[in-house]
Amino acid sequence: MPQAPSKQPLYIRMHPDDNVAIIVNDGGLPPGTDFPGEFVLSGHIPQGHKMALRTLKEGEPIVRYGVTIGYAHCGIPQGSWVEESLVRMPAARDLDGLPTCLQVGGRAEPLEGYTFEGYRNADGTVGTRNILAITTTVQCVAGVVEHAVKRIKAELLPAHPNVDDVIALEHTYGCGVAIDAPDAEIPIRTLRNISLNPNFGGQAMVVSLGCEKLQPSRLLPEGTLTASTGSCTVCLQHEQHVGFESMIAAIMEMAAQNLAVLGQRRRVTCPASDLVVGLQCGGSDAFSGVTANPAVGFATDLLVRAGASVLFSETTEVRDAIDQLTSRAATPAVAADLIREMAWYDRYLEKGGVDRSANTTPGNKKGGLVNIVEKAMGSIVKSGTGPISGVLGPGEKLKAKGLIYAATPASDFICGTLQLAAGMNLHVFTTGRGTPYGLAAVPVLKVATRSELARRWHDLMDVNAGTIATGEATIADVGWEIFHLLLAVASGKKTWAEHWKLHNALTLFNPAPVT
Amino acid sequence: MPQAPSKQPLYIRMHPDDNVAIIVNDGGLPPGTDFPGEFVLSGHIPQGHKMALRTLKEGEPIVRYGVTIGYAHCGIPQGSWVEESLVRMPAARDLDGLPTCLQVGGRAEPLEGYTFEGYRNADGTVGTRNILAITTTVQCVAGVVEHAVKRIKAELLPAHPNVDDVIALEHTYGCGVAIDAPDAEIPIRTLRNISLNPNFGGQAMVVSLGCEKLQPSRLLPEGTLTASTGSCTVCLQHEQHVGFESMIAAIMEMAAQNLAVLGQRRRVTCPASDLVVGLQCGGSDAFSGVTANPAVGFATDLLVRAGASVLFSETTEVRDAIDQLTSRAATPAVAADLIREMAWYDRYLEKGGVDRSANTTPGNKKGGLVNIVEKAMGSIVKSGTGPISGVLGPGEKLKAKGLIYAATPASDFICGTLQLAAGMNLHVFTTGRGTPYGLAAVPVLKVATRSELARRWHDLMDVNAGTIATGEATIADVGWEIFHLLLAVASGKKTWAEHWKLHNALTLFNPAPVT
Repeated sequence: MPQAPSKQPLYIRMHPDDNVAIIVNDGGLPPGTDFPGEFVLSGHIPQGHKMALRTLKEGEPIVRYGVTIGYAHCGIPQGSWVEESLVRMPAARDLDGLPTCLQVGGRAEPLEGYTFEGYRNADGTVGTRNILAITTTVQCVAGVVEHAVKRIKAELLPAHPNVDDVIALEHTYGCGVAIDAPDAEIPIRTLRNISLNPNFGGQAMVVSLGCEKLQPSRLLPEGTLTASTGSCTVCLQHEQHVGFESMIAAIMEMAAQNLAVLGQRRRVTCPASDLVVGLQCGGSDAFSGVTANPAVGFATDLLVRAGASVLFSETTEVRDAIDQLTSRAATPAVAADLIREMAWYDRYLEKGGVDRSANTTPGNKKGGLVNIVEKAMGSIVKSGTGPISGVLGPGEKLKAKGLIYAATPASDFICGTLQLAAGMNLHVFTTGRGTPYGLAAVPVLKVATRSELARRWHDLMDVNAGTIATGEATIADVGWEIFHLLLAVASGKKTWAEHWKLHNALTLFNPAPVT
Repeated sequence: MPQAPSKQPLYIRMHPDDNVAIIVNDGGLPPGTDFPGEFVLSGHIPQGHKMALRTLKEGEPIVRYGVTIGYAHCGIPQGSWVEESLVRMPAARDLDGLPTCLQVGGRAEPLEGYTFEGYRNADGTVGTRNILAITTTVQCVAGVVEHAVKRIKAELLPAHPNVDDVIALEHTYGCGVAIDAPDAEIPIRTLRNISLNPNFGGQAMVVSLGCEKLQPSRLLPEGTLTASTGSCTVCLQHEQHVGFESMIAAIMEMAAQNLAVLGQRRRVTCPASDLVVGLQCGGSDAFSGVTANPAVGFATDLLVRAGASVLFSETTEVRDAIDQLTSRAATPAVAADLIREMAWYDRYLEKGGVDRSANTTPGNKKGGLVNIVEKAMGSIVKSGTGPISGVLGPGEKLKAKGLIYAATPASDFICGTLQLAAGMNLHVFTTGRGTPYGLAAVPVLKVATRSELARRWHDLMDVNAGTIATGEATIADVGWEIFHLLLAVASGKKTWAEHWKLHNALTLFNPAPVT
């Protein structure tokens, strides 16, 4: 795919049918740049932006990834910049009459022998970290819990070198919300399932206020937890608490008991099939779909062959590729589930007076992505090439292995939060513009789409996929690098986000009203 | 209003027309309790719950606060418990044909001579605290900003004893949202106006990612800030930043400049008219409308007479008293604005498949409030008795003095966040069940509705209004106590929430979709 080693003017065409290609060179290319035997650039084209490979007539389809990403708003001469204003966005693909289950033939060859060192839980899941998490039923208790967490870290945690961290699962839900509204099940099950994330060892320690709508029994109904210790609750309004220090003492006592259990755990060798890898992209650019996402897609195929679970998400960023996804559905039921999630989100956006085009950001556009169709084509590449074996609604917990579409909004924090609920124990995040994204609960491995970003953010990016664009590495090279690094991180190696302790907030998806 | 000094069985009737009254005694009253010459209790009635003062026939109106709060589901004998299941909720008051502007006569007598020591800002507003706030455009930067804030507090703040705190204005908005949706103006203006809160001294220091939807120029357009220093921005994606430490250094350098300016400020004597007091209740019980809220209402009248601004809010908790509010509107335009805000919220809830009845919590009901109508009657008492002189939409900034209806959801965190945006510099919060609520930006003075709570949470509640129920104090006594304490807190006295550094999250009201 790359055209030449370095310094020379470079462009990348993704598919033989494409009539546009993106400029690779840092800083873009000036007017007069000569692609010998092809054409000369008529004006400056920024890095990552599209160049017309041949003259396009008004109304003619503009094709990238072999897909029509738009129509020429007017005539566009060969070798000129196909900028945003020249591209008319196509309508969303109709959800009727989609091709389904076209991927026939046997399963890909199993990939065996890969392992990592993890913390095995009573329910069979495996943690990549050993964390004491304090579940909260409602935002009201956040201040008290933060105070307690500081003291737990200072006074109790040092005695437990095998426990990685103590974190509060703070959120803005729990009261002042229409908790019986039709869509309220989404935030409730999200919080429930996050409490059950494999990295928390099956222990659930709950701090409740007392009068809130999201009562502990509603958050974690009897029998939700399989671990022998089950859950325990401190209720701040309980009459046993006289004064603030009494609340803190109760939380610390409960933490001490849980830390004693967590502190006994040791890493054991686990097959790669115990990984649950959540995929996401944020701050995307035109290279996302060329370098980082294809490399992640390669790693996805390896993971699925190794028997692991891989979650891909971001509904508005796959909506325009729904025909590709239904084609890859393992069964008609999976195809129907995919269509159901797309239709639900179409309606959700419509109720708010917008559509999928509300997704793209100023940074996406600056990075060369003209619209959500082009962005989506680059986004779905993360999912590799294999059959899609399941679909999760927002906040649902993983039920099976393989490649799973976990339906979530594309918002980085909301997507990450919902993937935590699904049970992810590793997170891969690709970025072109650059983001310091991180989560407290699960290690986040960040992949840069461009070498310039990887150099500048040398202590924030874990992998540089920019070498693919310049021909220094192949997609397979970087894909294997990601795969091996995932096993190392799963075994305890720290990512840059962990090194700096960079954590984003849990951000719930609540399509229901607040009151 | 109280019936007797103490120990004796006590009930409180709020209005001569009431046919129910609430039980005052801690722990409620047992069957057989004799109210001599009146009646004998047929069964146990919990504290705060209602007793039938006379036998009610099926379908008969149940009247409290002189208002029909429901209809008897079946016959209810005199002296028995009017529990939730016996009360059928009335329909919401129609928004057509409401009485308006019935409060005639001159202004209440001005209250003069009351002052506090505050930080006067260039735009004429006054801070009650002197805080360096770091505005963020997007959740992506939260981890980096938190890291920087820790270092600023440790390395820079100690040199500025006149600066109270350094806080990050962290939120979950800024990207992954439909930023051009019809309702997106609400979260955007909320964040903008919070940056301008009087407690931040007119300095705005912004940390931006770079590619986010909420660009700094959209958050704080040119000319938004009146202070001489204006705003300054650190953009993490800017090419000048090589490595994580470079981002932290840039934020710290900007903080050092702002701290130097804030550190020069001194408190000066300001009239009470410079106060902007936000009112809120949370974890309400049947005493809220009997003790704490009437005392706050008394203080509201004093504040308004002193020329201050008082914000009352919580749309679902005033909706059933809309006729009382429009009656008190100072002008027909204010009445129309009140009706507009109620109608907007009715539609917002309807779109989510619920109505105002979604408001009440398990704790409200345990505390004796059978439905939102009863809760609302107790809630609006906070607004005192004077004319309503203005209405703000959610997230709008205060434009005038007097008693203002600041339309917000009733969610404690969302209401507090929107009152911060309106420009509040003091916060009064009443609670019956008890909540450790606090804000980082503005002192929160908490008022307990019951003596039992005030005793138990002795180092979390600032004022005990429970003495009103037992006859130990009058509404005026506690009202004046709150008024004087507000002036002291405005001058620097710490509330309990400040003492323990209890802070709830900024929680935006975003009725628009996420993407």
